[in-house]
Amino acid sequence: MYAVEVSDHIMIAHSFKGEVFGPAQALHGATFTVAVTFMSETLDANGIVVDIGCAIDVLKATLKTVNYKNLDDIAEFKGVNTTTEWLTRWVFDQFAAAVKANKLGRPANQISAIRVTVGESPNARAWYEAAL
Amino acid sequence: MYAVEVSDHIMIAHSFKGEVFGPAQALHGATFTVAVTFMSETLDANGIVVDIGCAIDVLKATLKTVNYKNLDDIAEFKGVNTTTEWLTRWVFDQFAAAVKANKLGRPANQISAIRVTVGESPNARAWYEAAL
Amino acid sequence: MYAVEVSDHIMIAHSFKGEVFGPAQALHGATFTVAVTFMSETLDANGIVVDIGCAIDVLKATLKTVNYKNLDDIAEFKGVNTTTEWLTRWVFDQFAAAVKANKLGRPANQISAIRVTVGESPNARAWYEAAL
Amino acid sequence: MYAVEVSDHIMIAHSFKGEVFGPAQALHGATFTVAVTFMSETLDANGIVVDIGCAIDVLKATLKTVNYKNLDDIAEFKGVNTTTEWLTRWVFDQFAAAVKANKLGRPANQISAIRVTVGESPNARAWYEAAL
Amino acid sequence: MYAVEVSDHIMIAHSFKGEVFGPAQALHGATFTVAVTFMSETLDANGIVVDIGCAIDVLKATLKTVNYKNLDDIAEFKGVNTTTEWLTRWVFDQFAAAVKANKLGRPANQISAIRVTVGESPNARAWYEAAL
Amino acid sequence: MYAVEVSDHIMIAHSFKGEVFGPAQALHGATFTVAVTFMSETLDANGIVVDIGCAIDVLKATLKTVNYKNLDDIAEFKGVNTTTEWLTRWVFDQFAAAVKANKLGRPANQISAIRVTVGESPNARAWYEAAL
Repeated sequence: MYAVEVSDHIMIAHSFKGEVFGPAQALHGATFTVAVTFMSETLDANGIVVDIGCAIDVLKATLKTVNYKNLDDIAEFKGVNTTTEWLTRWVFDQFAAAVKANKLGRPANQISAIRVTVGESPNARAWYEAAL
Repeated sequence: MYAVEVSDHIMIAHSFKGEVFGPAQALHGATFTVAVTFMSETLDANGIVVDIGCAIDVLKATLKTVNYKNLDDIAEFKGVNTTTEWLTRWVFDQFAAAVKANKLGRPANQISAIRVTVGESPNARAWYEAAL
Repeated sequence: MYAVEVSDHIMIAHSFKGEVFGPAQALHGATFTVAVTFMSETLDANGIVVDIGCAIDVLKATLKTVNYKNLDDIAEFKGVNTTTEWLTRWVFDQFAAAVKANKLGRPANQISAIRVTVGESPNARAWYEAAL
Repeated sequence: MYAVEVSDHIMIAHSFKGEVFGPAQALHGATFTVAVTFMSETLDANGIVVDIGCAIDVLKATLKTVNYKNLDDIAEFKGVNTTTEWLTRWVFDQFAAAVKANKLGRPANQISAIRVTVGESPNARAWYEAAL
Repeated sequence: MYAVEVSDHIMIAHSFKGEVFGPAQALHGATFTVAVTFMSETLDANGIVVDIGCAIDVLKATLKTVNYKNLDDIAEFKGVNTTTEWLTRWVFDQFAAAVKANKLGRPANQISAIRVTVGESPNARAWYEAAL
Repeated sequence: MYAVEVSDHIMIAHSFKGEVFGPAQALHGATFTVAVTFMSETLDANGIVVDIGCAIDVLKATLKTVNYKNLDDIAEFKGVNTTTEWLTRWVFDQFAAAVKANKLGRPANQISAIRVTVGESPNARAWYEAAL
């Protein structure tokens, strides 16, 4: 299995509901590094998994909708805890849609899986990986 | 599959038995970075894989028993080479027990696997991963 | 000149006033890594610049007052832009006071300077350094 | 599953053919970090996956054939785009052969898989993983 | 003294003249990470050293002229060894001019010094620092 | 001022004498990353600060005398606490001697200062810098 990964970051505010979060129930924030990994059984005729330029464009467009925002104020996110784990899935869903819409420069049926890794600090990170 | 990972480090002394280890047969030491990854098919109602606070507590308690020690002097480790690979499994076993004892803030049957990654230098690391 | 440095991190929310900040005028947040460097012309009888344990304790106590907070809500910070640069100075001032109060395990007149480095993302950081 | 990983780096020039590569069609270059991961279901009697010394030797010998070179000039690579993804496979093939030739200090049938990860910049990397 | 630093990277080919360079006399390449640090005795009314947005724009414009190029083919660089050290100075000179041209969002006389750090591999880097 | 820096690492055991060290009074160990920085007002005719190949050779030779050792057993180190700070100075002294012996490929009077940085963990490091 081949994989190629690109990364970027966002700086957001948010708060959590639930005693399990302790002091993180208060409004705080994070610099989240976001890496998206595309997997394929084969390379295409150019010798690549996906067009990295396309992948970076989709990543920038995806992150722009949440960067420099308070996630608590985003209508689409109402009623959910925007945890690091939850964000990995939200980014995954945007990329699964982008693959289906042929925005990665590779036919959708040749991309077998995506992993999204979100780092919140030097000591903690999360990821979500699923087949497409 | 969702995953969440926390990390810490220890500073220990040890020596190895066996010609394969060359100069590392002598008493030397290491700063080991230790990352523990918990995997689950689902997030719980709070939107998390495990309670990171609990995970960090168990990691600190686990590492405290070996930190600032000469591993050659620990009775439990007598007769084994405490290699980086071996340590990944030892830490894994402590966390597998902690999951069973419900110390991670998530029912044991909802944590599907654990991976433990131990870094020994900028150029070498090892990991152990298994289903629970 | 000898130097020793310890580091930790915080996760905070804040907003900025001023057109120069563009989208960062909105409420957003950051994971700030914070490193404090102590400089001395000499080592003490133990062979150290300062007691690292003390340095970590003061760093934790300092950061606890702002960690998991919205800096816009902290009375002491009213009317200022809590930029990365500004934070380096705020942390510096706490440590300059701690040195004077002999909290670092070394006589104040033997610590010649302090540098505080704050990282906001993989691509940007700031520091403040001054003699004591 | 146990894994052990060693890493090194090379500094090479190359160019790509195909509009998808944009400005990277011109002769340019890269510092490639190269990590090779060996996986095994068991540790051997010494408590290791493979002999790290052997792994480093094979990695150095493999990379020496391309380090400080223009990959466009290497006869074996004629007509291919030496992309980051393609290089992961090329390094994998060298190590698959080395395992079969018993150069890793572990019987070939006890090494179940190899992963090769090649980083091209702080923001992009690729890997290839396959069973042996 | 306050400092703020932004970073980016380039991927270039080049060769060196002189026996001291050994195998690096051949055409090879590098991913260079480039960090530019601006120093000032004071923060401005916004609480910043320079406008980071401006700094990133100048850095991107500067690096664009050499990114994805063979430095041996750039007329301006003819007859020089484009070593990591030499590049730190070349980038410094571009930024010294940008400061004089008031492109950093801060009056030139309030920026006291610039440091440019260029990393060529995980094990080697260079920097150039001078007062303005 | 120009600077060029190379780095390597060692894995050693040691213990400290003095209550200030707490649990680190026991025999433990560390992976120390060691970076040596050479500073010069000018580049030589080749466009370099020092010959990096020479710098790496001297670094390897210096570190070989302590790598994979228990520092408590080294006669030269008897009666001293081999703290991270102390090691920065010990490495500095070896390089100051190497510069005087013209082992860096640059006349001694053209190297103005050396800094040695030793990292002991992701959260702590020390350095020593002095003019030659």
